[in-house]
Amino acid sequence: MSFERVAIIGLGLLGGSIGLAVAEHLPHIVTHGYDADPEVRRRAGERGLVGQVCADATEAVAGADLVILCIPVGAMGDAARALAPALAPDTLISDVGSSKRTISEALARALPDHLVIPAHPVAGTEHSGPDAGFAHLFHQRWCIITPPAGAPSDKVKELVQFWEALGAMVETMDADHHDRVLAVTSHIPHLIAYTIVGTASDMEEVTRSEVIKYSAGGFRDFTRIAASDPTMWRDVFLHNRDAVLDMLEAFLTDLALMREAIRAGDGETMYELFSRTREIRRSIVALGQDDSRPDFGRADHR
Amino acid sequence: MSFERVAIIGLGLLGGSIGLAVAEHLPHIVTHGYDADPEVRRRAGERGLVGQVCADATEAVAGADLVILCIPVGAMGDAARALAPALAPDTLISDVGSSKRTISEALARALPDHLVIPAHPVAGTEHSGPDAGFAHLFHQRWCIITPPAGAPSDKVKELVQFWEALGAMVETMDADHHDRVLAVTSHIPHLIAYTIVGTASDMEEVTRSEVIKYSAGGFRDFTRIAASDPTMWRDVFLHNRDAVLDMLEAFLTDLALMREAIRAGDGETMYELFSRTREIRRSIVALGQDDSRPDFGRADHR
Repeated sequence: MSFERVAIIGLGLLGGSIGLAVAEHLPHIVTHGYDADPEVRRRAGERGLVGQVCADATEAVAGADLVILCIPVGAMGDAARALAPALAPDTLISDVGSSKRTISEALARALPDHLVIPAHPVAGTEHSGPDAGFAHLFHQRWCIITPPAGAPSDKVKELVQFWEALGAMVETMDADHHDRVLAVTSHIPHLIAYTIVGTASDMEEVTRSEVIKYSAGGFRDFTRIAASDPTMWRDVFLHNRDAVLDMLEAFLTDLALMREAIRAGDGETMYELFSRTREIRRSIVALGQDDSRPDFGRADHR
Repeated sequence: MSFERVAIIGLGLLGGSIGLAVAEHLPHIVTHGYDADPEVRRRAGERGLVGQVCADATEAVAGADLVILCIPVGAMGDAARALAPALAPDTLISDVGSSKRTISEALARALPDHLVIPAHPVAGTEHSGPDAGFAHLFHQRWCIITPPAGAPSDKVKELVQFWEALGAMVETMDADHHDRVLAVTSHIPHLIAYTIVGTASDMEEVTRSEVIKYSAGGFRDFTRIAASDPTMWRDVFLHNRDAVLDMLEAFLTDLALMREAIRAGDGETMYELFSRTREIRRSIVALGQDDSRPDFGRADHR
């Protein structure tokens, strides 16, 4: 891998974790970072998220071989336009956004003279900001790279190697397919979690305090997801609208079938669904994508 | 507390955990247990889930002060009827079922001459069976007791003390209110999780293998819940139908609003919901009902 200087724009959970992971796994790479929020820059400096925190984005990217945008997907176009004058001609631009088609287009429009290869590490926690990142966030997690048509294969390979060096497993696919896959495995789960947590908070006959007290029956798991960064997730739904709406229809159709089964007292239909969903869990645990301990290991910790 | 001999009918996750918790916290109490499945009885004996595993349910309850039914809610009426002839007149009957109104009625019908005080410890994991139980399952968890009208307060108090001794915090409420609270905090979350896991498994354009690989984006959390015991959950939806259908309507109404917001590109509505849901998470963690570590502590464990 030929990267010698990496610029990280946005020093929250993802940007901070990349900086820390580079320091751990690729210590020869020099990292510069920038965040629009001065308080985030201060904390990033204190935590040493990058080698140098810059007060200006153009300063951070000057001389970088690789620039990674770690900001909400809705902010990427403008951010890229602001960086353009400071970028060297052969700087590779990438990102970590959770939706890829509109972002690829926005970045290509903002930087018509640069090679843009978008990426999405499928990793994170419900925490955000400069205190949330940690070096092993990407270990054993997939990173999906969505190279545009005609992207030079050596450059794609360099980006693959970069992510592999941080501990990730890498797949490449086209942006549209990415957006449909992630609508299922991430965006719809977040939409559902945010919605049910909202529904539960607004009940008249069941109080908020009851919802909180008895949350160990399952609800608390949804509140973790629904504690994710609101700006980031608003932008995901604005930018992956079509795939999210399609997948939501599929979910609503299935939920209507379950509602009918409950209305009709049709235990057989319920049992059939409830028993086959176990298999997917087993596969996810077997593939190292979740903790095998019961209750995510929370039970051990109590 | 005056209980000297407790019988546990059903030696899965809940029954086994009660047996182990009694041995740890109330070692003077003698426990007898029974399970309809001989293989479960064998494992229960090996693990020492109760002091004595009986080959017959009537043998297990003979002479017991307290009998706790730890079986799917749909099986409780028949099980209670089978026990009736072997129960001493002053034996207190309780259970751990996740829905309470129909169960209370079924148990009262099956045992018209006995005092029945239903209970529901709001605790569990996605695992089931005789290997799943552990002694601290009830620590820092609420147990809801739903005494029928006219239940003697000294008997209610004894049951409260029993659960407190196992590490639980206890609330009493009426069965109908319990069923509405739990529909929100447990039953609807399970229904949604089972359904979305089913939807994701059946996609044509997104393969099962992709769903599994990229599950760390949020989906994997739902698969944990959707790995819960299918018989138990079928029975919950058959027995708490009305409350579940009501709460499902509220959720579907809110989800339709979010769908409209996504269709219309209405970021403000999304942002408003996504930011207020964080507060509930904070309260749940502050109340000790969930792990404060990011990602349920899974990130530390990797």
